[in-house]
Amino acid sequence: MHYQLYYWPMIQGRGEYVRLALEDAGAEYTDVARGKGGTGAMMKIMDAHKGTPPFAPPFLKAGLLVIGQTANILLYLGARHGLAPKAEGGKLWVHELQLTIADLVLEIHDTHHPLGPSLYYEDQKAPAKKRTEEFWKSRVPKYLGYFEDLVRANGGGFVTGRRLTYADLSLFQIVEGLRYAFPKRMAAFEKKVPRLIALRDRVAERPNIKTYLASERRIPFNEEGIFRRYKALDL
Amino acid sequence: MHYQLYYWPMIQGRGEYVRLALEDAGAEYTDVARGKGGTGAMMKIMDAHKGTPPFAPPFLKAGLLVIGQTANILLYLGARHGLAPKAEGGKLWVHELQLTIADLVLEIHDTHHPLGPSLYYEDQKAPAKKRTEEFWKSRVPKYLGYFEDLVRANGGGFVTGRRLTYADLSLFQIVEGLRYAFPKRMAAFEKKVPRLIALRDRVAERPNIKTYLASERRIPFNEEGIFRRYKALDL
Repeated sequence: MHYQLYYWPMIQGRGEYVRLALEDAGAEYTDVARGKGGTGAMMKIMDAHKGTPPFAPPFLKAGLLVIGQTANILLYLGARHGLAPKAEGGKLWVHELQLTIADLVLEIHDTHHPLGPSLYYEDQKAPAKKRTEEFWKSRVPKYLGYFEDLVRANGGGFVTGRRLTYADLSLFQIVEGLRYAFPKRMAAFEKKVPRLIALRDRVAERPNIKTYLASERRIPFNEEGIFRRYKALDL
Repeated sequence: MHYQLYYWPMIQGRGEYVRLALEDAGAEYTDVARGKGGTGAMMKIMDAHKGTPPFAPPFLKAGLLVIGQTANILLYLGARHGLAPKAEGGKLWVHELQLTIADLVLEIHDTHHPLGPSLYYEDQKAPAKKRTEEFWKSRVPKYLGYFEDLVRANGGGFVTGRRLTYADLSLFQIVEGLRYAFPKRMAAFEKKVPRLIALRDRVAERPNIKTYLASERRIPFNEEGIFRRYKALDL
C-alpha cells in the first residue's frame, strides 16, 4: 500500500514519529503537504463534514482509511510493518509506551508554551523559564528514568527487549530533540540514562534511518516545531 | 473476567474515564486503591522492574495483562464490551477521538497548572489565569466545536453515530467536569454546543450510568483532580 501522510510541511513536529516509522519500515508514502497544493488538500480533509475528519495533523491516508492522532497511526502501522508485536499484550504494551511518550511531547511543548498554544513564545518568556526549570528538575528525570529502567530491566537493547518497535524510533526522536533544544542541559543529563543513549545510537545506525536522516526528507529542527532552541531556556 | 482498576482513591481524575466504561458495561471490577492497602499495592506494581510497569495510574489488571494509559485501557475494554466497533476502521476512529479527548484533558489540567504538575496551584495563580483565559477563548471552542460538528454531521445522537462508544462516556465526563470547574463560563458557552449537551443527557440517562452516579463509587469532584473549581479562574 502507498500511504499519504499529511502534516505541516515546515516542521518535524508530531509528524516525525510517523515519518520515522514509515522510513524504518521502508514503506512507500507521499508527504503530501510538502508537495504543491498539499497544505490546501490537508485543510480540506480536516474541514470535511463527513467521514472521519481529524482534529489536527498528522493524519495518514491508508486506502480508504483516514487515521489521525500520532499514536493511533503508529498503532496501525506497527501491526502492518513488524514495528510492534502481533500478540495483544505486546501490542498494548508498545502502544502504552507510545502514549507516555506523547504525554512527554506535550510537556516538552509546554516548556516554551506554558500559557497555551495560541500565544507566541515571546509573550510568555518568564513563565516558560519557570516551566522549563521544573521540567528539567522533575519531569525529565521521571520520564527518561522510566525508559532507562525499562531498557535495563529487559536487557535487550530496545525498550521492550530484543526487537525494535515504533516506540524505540520515537525515543530516538526524543533524545535528538532534547539535544537540539537544550544542548547544555541535555549534555549534563545524558550520563544518567546511558542505556537510552545507547538505544538512540542503535536506532541511528539502522540503514533506513541513516539514509533518511541524511536525506532532504528529514526536515531540520527549527523554532516552529516541538523542540525549540531558546538560549534563555538552556541555562 | 473480574478486573482490577488501580487509580488514586480520592479523585475522579483520569481513572474516571475507565470507571465510566466499566460501569456502563456492567463489568465486574475492584477499584483496588480505594480498599485497604490498595494504594501500596498500586505503587508496588509501578515500581516493579519486570513485566510492564505503568508510568502512572490509571492501569487495569485484566487476567495476566497490566494495561496502562487511559486511552489504551479503553481500547482494550471497548473491544470486549461492545463500547467500540469491531471493524478496524471504526475501532481506530473511536480511539482517535479518545486521544483527542486525552489532549483536551491535559489542556484542562494546564489551566490550573501552567507551570507544570510539580508545583502547587497557589504558586502559579497569575499564569493560571492567563492560560485559562486563552483556554476558553480559543481551545474550548476548537475542541468542543469539533465534537459538536461530529454529532451534527452523523446525526445519530452519539459522536460516531447511532451507537454509544466509550468516547461518548468520556465526552459526558468532559461536560460534567467543565460544569463543575467553570460554572459561569460553561453556562455561557453551552448554547454553542447543543448537540454535545444532548449527548451528555443521553449518557446520564443510561441505567448503569444513572446507578453509578448515584452511588458512593462515584467520587465527588474536588480540588485535587483534573477539574478544579477556583473562583479566580471562572470570571
